[in-house]
Amino acid sequence: MLARGAVRLEVSDRAWLQATLDAEAALGRAHARAGSISPEDAEAIARACRVDAFDMEAIGRDAASAGTPIVPLVGAITAAVGGTAAGHVHAGATSQDIMDTAAMLVASRSLGYILTDLEGAADAAGALASRHRSTLMAARTLLQQALPTTFGLKAATWMIGLDQACARLRGVRDERLAAQLGGAAGTLASLGETGPAILSAFADELGLREPIVPWHTDRTRITELSGALGEAAGAIGKPALDVVLLAQTEVGEVREGAPGRGGSSTLPHKRNPVASVSALAAVRDVPGLVSSMLAASVHEHERAAGSWHAEWRPLSNLLLAVGSAAAWLRDCLEQLEVDEQAMRANLDRTGGLILAERITTALAADVGRLAAHDLVERASARTVEEHLPFGEALAAEPEIRERLSAADIERLLDPAGYLGVADEFVERALRAHAEARS
Amino acid sequence: MLARGAVRLEVSDRAWLQATLDAEAALGRAHARAGSISPEDAEAIARACRVDAFDMEAIGRDAASAGTPIVPLVGAITAAVGGTAAGHVHAGATSQDIMDTAAMLVASRSLGYILTDLEGAADAAGALASRHRSTLMAARTLLQQALPTTFGLKAATWMIGLDQACARLRGVRDERLAAQLGGAAGTLASLGETGPAILSAFADELGLREPIVPWHTDRTRITELSGALGEAAGAIGKPALDVVLLAQTEVGEVREGAPGRGGSSTLPHKRNPVASVSALAAVRDVPGLVSSMLAASVHEHERAAGSWHAEWRPLSNLLLAVGSAAAWLRDCLEQLEVDEQAMRANLDRTGGLILAERITTALAADVGRLAAHDLVERASARTVEEHLPFGEALAAEPEIRERLSAADIERLLDPAGYLGVADEFVERALRAHAEARS
Amino acid sequence: MLARGAVRLEVSDRAWLQATLDAEAALGRAHARAGSISPEDAEAIARACRVDAFDMEAIGRDAASAGTPIVPLVGAITAAVGGTAAGHVHAGATSQDIMDTAAMLVASRSLGYILTDLEGAADAAGALASRHRSTLMAARTLLQQALPTTFGLKAATWMIGLDQACARLRGVRDERLAAQLGGAAGTLASLGETGPAILSAFADELGLREPIVPWHTDRTRITELSGALGEAAGAIGKPALDVVLLAQTEVGEVREGAPGRGGSSTLPHKRNPVASVSALAAVRDVPGLVSSMLAASVHEHERAAGSWHAEWRPLSNLLLAVGSAAAWLRDCLEQLEVDEQAMRANLDRTGGLILAERITTALAADVGRLAAHDLVERASARTVEEHLPFGEALAAEPEIRERLSAADIERLLDPAGYLGVADEFVERALRAHAEARS
Amino acid sequence: MLARGAVRLEVSDRAWLQATLDAEAALGRAHARAGSISPEDAEAIARACRVDAFDMEAIGRDAASAGTPIVPLVGAITAAVGGTAAGHVHAGATSQDIMDTAAMLVASRSLGYILTDLEGAADAAGALASRHRSTLMAARTLLQQALPTTFGLKAATWMIGLDQACARLRGVRDERLAAQLGGAAGTLASLGETGPAILSAFADELGLREPIVPWHTDRTRITELSGALGEAAGAIGKPALDVVLLAQTEVGEVREGAPGRGGSSTLPHKRNPVASVSALAAVRDVPGLVSSMLAASVHEHERAAGSWHAEWRPLSNLLLAVGSAAAWLRDCLEQLEVDEQAMRANLDRTGGLILAERITTALAADVGRLAAHDLVERASARTVEEHLPFGEALAAEPEIRERLSAADIERLLDPAGYLGVADEFVERALRAHAEARS
Repeated sequence: MLARGAVRLEVSDRAWLQATLDAEAALGRAHARAGSISPEDAEAIARACRVDAFDMEAIGRDAASAGTPIVPLVGAITAAVGGTAAGHVHAGATSQDIMDTAAMLVASRSLGYILTDLEGAADAAGALASRHRSTLMAARTLLQQALPTTFGLKAATWMIGLDQACARLRGVRDERLAAQLGGAAGTLASLGETGPAILSAFADELGLREPIVPWHTDRTRITELSGALGEAAGAIGKPALDVVLLAQTEVGEVREGAPGRGGSSTLPHKRNPVASVSALAAVRDVPGLVSSMLAASVHEHERAAGSWHAEWRPLSNLLLAVGSAAAWLRDCLEQLEVDEQAMRANLDRTGGLILAERITTALAADVGRLAAHDLVERASARTVEEHLPFGEALAAEPEIRERLSAADIERLLDPAGYLGVADEFVERALRAHAEARS
Repeated sequence: MLARGAVRLEVSDRAWLQATLDAEAALGRAHARAGSISPEDAEAIARACRVDAFDMEAIGRDAASAGTPIVPLVGAITAAVGGTAAGHVHAGATSQDIMDTAAMLVASRSLGYILTDLEGAADAAGALASRHRSTLMAARTLLQQALPTTFGLKAATWMIGLDQACARLRGVRDERLAAQLGGAAGTLASLGETGPAILSAFADELGLREPIVPWHTDRTRITELSGALGEAAGAIGKPALDVVLLAQTEVGEVREGAPGRGGSSTLPHKRNPVASVSALAAVRDVPGLVSSMLAASVHEHERAAGSWHAEWRPLSNLLLAVGSAAAWLRDCLEQLEVDEQAMRANLDRTGGLILAERITTALAADVGRLAAHDLVERASARTVEEHLPFGEALAAEPEIRERLSAADIERLLDPAGYLGVADEFVERALRAHAEARS
Repeated sequence: MLARGAVRLEVSDRAWLQATLDAEAALGRAHARAGSISPEDAEAIARACRVDAFDMEAIGRDAASAGTPIVPLVGAITAAVGGTAAGHVHAGATSQDIMDTAAMLVASRSLGYILTDLEGAADAAGALASRHRSTLMAARTLLQQALPTTFGLKAATWMIGLDQACARLRGVRDERLAAQLGGAAGTLASLGETGPAILSAFADELGLREPIVPWHTDRTRITELSGALGEAAGAIGKPALDVVLLAQTEVGEVREGAPGRGGSSTLPHKRNPVASVSALAAVRDVPGLVSSMLAASVHEHERAAGSWHAEWRPLSNLLLAVGSAAAWLRDCLEQLEVDEQAMRANLDRTGGLILAERITTALAADVGRLAAHDLVERASARTVEEHLPFGEALAAEPEIRERLSAADIERLLDPAGYLGVADEFVERALRAHAEARS
Repeated sequence: MLARGAVRLEVSDRAWLQATLDAEAALGRAHARAGSISPEDAEAIARACRVDAFDMEAIGRDAASAGTPIVPLVGAITAAVGGTAAGHVHAGATSQDIMDTAAMLVASRSLGYILTDLEGAADAAGALASRHRSTLMAARTLLQQALPTTFGLKAATWMIGLDQACARLRGVRDERLAAQLGGAAGTLASLGETGPAILSAFADELGLREPIVPWHTDRTRITELSGALGEAAGAIGKPALDVVLLAQTEVGEVREGAPGRGGSSTLPHKRNPVASVSALAAVRDVPGLVSSMLAASVHEHERAAGSWHAEWRPLSNLLLAVGSAAAWLRDCLEQLEVDEQAMRANLDRTGGLILAERITTALAADVGRLAAHDLVERASARTVEEHLPFGEALAAEPEIRERLSAADIERLLDPAGYLGVADEFVERALRAHAEARS
């Protein structure tokens, strides 16, 4: 997978460290708001919580002894703060309070970028849907040409999937990312009666939700986020795969437009669909990452013996994979070159067979659906075997000729006349998209 | 995994067949409502769509030739209907319309039972939380005793997770399960202008949502359902694992209450926690099943070449696994026997060490947190190494004795006095549960 | 997924029941061989162990109370045996001994069928490789035409992957499928000193390996089997995906040959690649199933609290998925129709561009690789933009014309002359296959 | 997950870069051995292939344009080599040749460290098995005490699993890690007749196997490696989970021995089992990673459009997770403190009930197994309900008393007399381990 997009920076070791520092700073300010420490001490703590002031490697090394990076981090912050404020660093918190809160901040910040790229990709799909409402192409089922459709409807379907992915991710970000503060046993025992006030202020400082109870071992927030990211990956992979297939040498209906990208090291003539391939590569990693997150969601008692620690790496990788995929897809769709002539040429390749269903339907009114099916199948077989245009093969069947004139057949074999309500569906989709984006 | 609960019947081959028949019947009625066939023909189709009238084995056998069970099924229905109505069976639909709609019906019906059991489990957890608000027990982190807590808070945390799982599943059921009707290319081409009216009536007949556009290759509905089931599995697994751990011979704080269950084939004295173990077994299958669903979510063009077919088995198994787990957990929690004396006895096993944090906090005001930590660590070490009661070890440290009297120490070592806001958290949780259930 | 092949019967509930009965019968005979019961009693037990004599539904129902189906099964066998022999049923065994041994039997029997189909598929690929050693076609990278190759080399690569999958599965079947007999604690305590003799005879009766120690909670046998099945799925999916892609309407290089299969319910002219699509659908389920098996491989103490029970369903489904995929693929390859003319026509579609690398190589000797790359890239660009034959575009570059004559260019653009050692690779592959199969 | 062990360095970006450089250097030397370039040019290339000479960030940045890091890398090497040798850099290779070969080198080097730690862990388990052959403890099934066993047998079972994991990983490393060299289409077209000689020399230079045919889209080598790593994870997780469970406050039978590790940030008295918890955390990530690798194993045509690129990240993470888990487990087992007295005390907790099976067996000879089961169950129930010692409860049953004297009962309730062939199993296991290690 080739990582891409701003999300890379948001899941780095440095970003995680900053998020833990933000949590410690917010905890100090929450204490101040609840009156349990002075505003000056809170600000002293906050001032010390700058990522550049800490030795990430040393903290990582010492994390192994403690089983968590927070133990050495708290030591380092305390040393950095000095004075009376030093005694208030991390007050009332347990390591998991800080790590979980940091995970929520990392997720929230990453989701910001992911949503921007997903919305950009959805807008680009919408623009394609709008521009190509009347662009005829073959609909393909099981990779076989089936019936005519429009590129507009295809792009509108991409857009609807992306819009839905955005809606879910936004819902999770706004409703489910919560601060964590419970102390060692989830009772806030060391904070006494001010516990709830500090919890409330802590969440507020960070722009996260306040939970009803500490969620040290209720991981539904984490699994809901993971599920939403998994859903997004599917919505991203769909258009990416379609682009790869449409860009095949033998199909040639689209081409990735980024100048200078996709050259091959040994094949100078190729223009590889790098963005869609890279999006697909990122997407392919996601089901396994989601399963890792789900497998880590059953936590023992008041703090898990392994499952909690197992979340960190796949969570970062999941945000990175979906974020990269979103960035690649947006790039792909915003610069997609569409070859309408190739679409039309491919549509004509079956010599009219692609409209067999329409003939069947026209005949069915007279002879019944199954009989119509059989008649058309016979004509289709001749078309394939004798390389006959489908119109002629149809006209050669007496039972068909009785019912359909040559002009009827010609009209029925015009793909532009057999698009059903494709246009109406595009209209519905664009309207829904406009609502979602406003 | 031992399957359990009504969901077993809802994901059986027979239930899938019934759901496809329900879809075909609803399609006929939708045509009648749109005026494209007569009400009599619609009822003739509906009358034929009874599961007992069909040979499931034969349909399964013929499915292999067609690549879908719908082709032989439509043939069989058409034969069963007879007369003029026969020509209207399946009119305008493609195989995937019927299978996808059936999948939604199977999911909707299964979710009904799953929700009932999950709500039952959450209610049972709520009853435990309420009954045991003051029942002292050890909070355990990394399976080591950490601090006192209450069984009420533990049960309340179970409940909150289960409530959240219910909320998500309900949301998916009500908002995201949609009818599918697009015809071969997703354009409803063979239905002409009445297409949208038929789609709308079709969804209405089945009690499913009407989609904006056909979702043949936009699988976000399926992945969102899968993600919600994955989230539910974690919420179920959490209390199940806690029960298994609390039921250990050496812990003995709870016992599964179902009479006559859990006997061992060779060990007559054992009472195995069968329900929680079975819930865990079912839960353990879920991450892999969700990853199968997600891996199948990138569909080619207008109908996938394999990914669509790949959804059926894991979807059934996912509903079955979560449904069984929910049924087992409800059973477990509704009959759970709690041994308050064992909880209290275990809490006393560390000779008071479990309250070390409280002593640290009390000292920290005077000497600073890190110094307090070191002092208490020294006393703790003596307690462990010399098998000294913690109170004596504390009193033996001059720097502690200066600051805390024997009475202070005794008071500080009473676990009932160091529960923080456990009770308030239980209160908040029960209030939220009451709201969620009303 | 559409199940296919004999493996379906080998993973059915009935097959599992038969396997547990076979284990109980073998246990009786092993006792007789070790002298701990009489041969007559052993035969009485064996006679009772016929699957038709038992009520599968009742056993399934009672399994829920005991947490395992073996408890009610042993009761039923004991009742069926009667007389003195009844007291020796299941002697010395624990439920897991029987279930684990049955799992090994189910796996062993299923692997027999899977190997037959995989070998058949590999043979079919070998026949294609042999027949099409000289059949020219386009090699495609990232679904873009890259260079000429032969269909023979493509099929040989399929074959090598399938051969390797067979080798691994055969290795696991012959070396790693072992009997399980340890009694309740893995010590064979209730058998006294004869334990090892009975264990040895038990394995011998069943044609399974004798383990060094009971493997109740050492699941490497199960995970090794799962890994080998996962590997096989990839080897099956590769040719299936290639067939689906080659069968696309716009590519048309192969066609599935099974008569009467692949008709569409609404599109009478289509011939869907049902076998390869079905193989892909089955394959797509496998990574999730393997992850379920791996996630269940960490077992507590002397018998797991959930992980063991979690193995049964995914194990059956994994064998079924790989077995179905193997059967579908064999079917696909044995009847594959290859259109050599279409392959050749597609190869000519780029107007010669596909041989750009060869021109680059020819020029590189003179001008260096990077300069040659740039020259050829320029000519390629003109070919694409101006729809010029590549030969002309090359000749139009002065720096190329200086070095290559028109005849040189014509010769260099003949794909048959730029196949490298494709033929030698096919030869190596066929030789390795012949060795593997002998 | 907390990464640990030397494997961290072997999967870093820098290690991957070094491996690609090693592949390019070996390619140059292979050309020289085949006579297609001069030894001087080969050495000029090799001299340039030092990791410190390249700008990793720039290569990473440019990788995004090309879709692979090899395109910019080859440019950079070519620039670094200069002179006539520059024209021979990367000759005949495609990007995937270098990346796949690098992946094999990364895997091979990582496996070296993983095997060292796994063997160390197996040796440590062997030492425990040997030292504790007679150490009595409770066997636990479903976390309930079941029968007596020895800690020696438990440790021997750990060892056997680890030995098997080593055997598989060694087999994969030695037999399946192969060089990749096929050129753009897998035909070695640009190398002419010397292709096979260069391939052979290339593999030899790197200490990797020579493949029969290029394996660009036959990923069985990768999936076999992944499966073996998945198996290893289970073998590592098993003892880690047992240690966590045995270290519980209420069980207290083992304790991790690393001095100064495992302190809690707020609970000074705790000694967390950091190594086993960290091993478990690493193990928990593995099933998802293996499923990602398997899901990426179906590659299109001659180079995959996404699946190939999808392998890199999970492969590194998989090696890292298993390597970290192995390092943590070795650390855990080499320093494990075993409390034999606690084991014995726990064994006595059920008042003798744990030997119920033995009583049942003793009675069964007289009264039949089912009747014996019922009698013992009755006595067991009284023991539990009336807090009676099991010996007394047994003696109080007239049907038992008739058959067993008080002395019989006392002898039968001595756990040391009911260990079956635990010792013989340990002996067998240690013998197998000694063979495996020699």
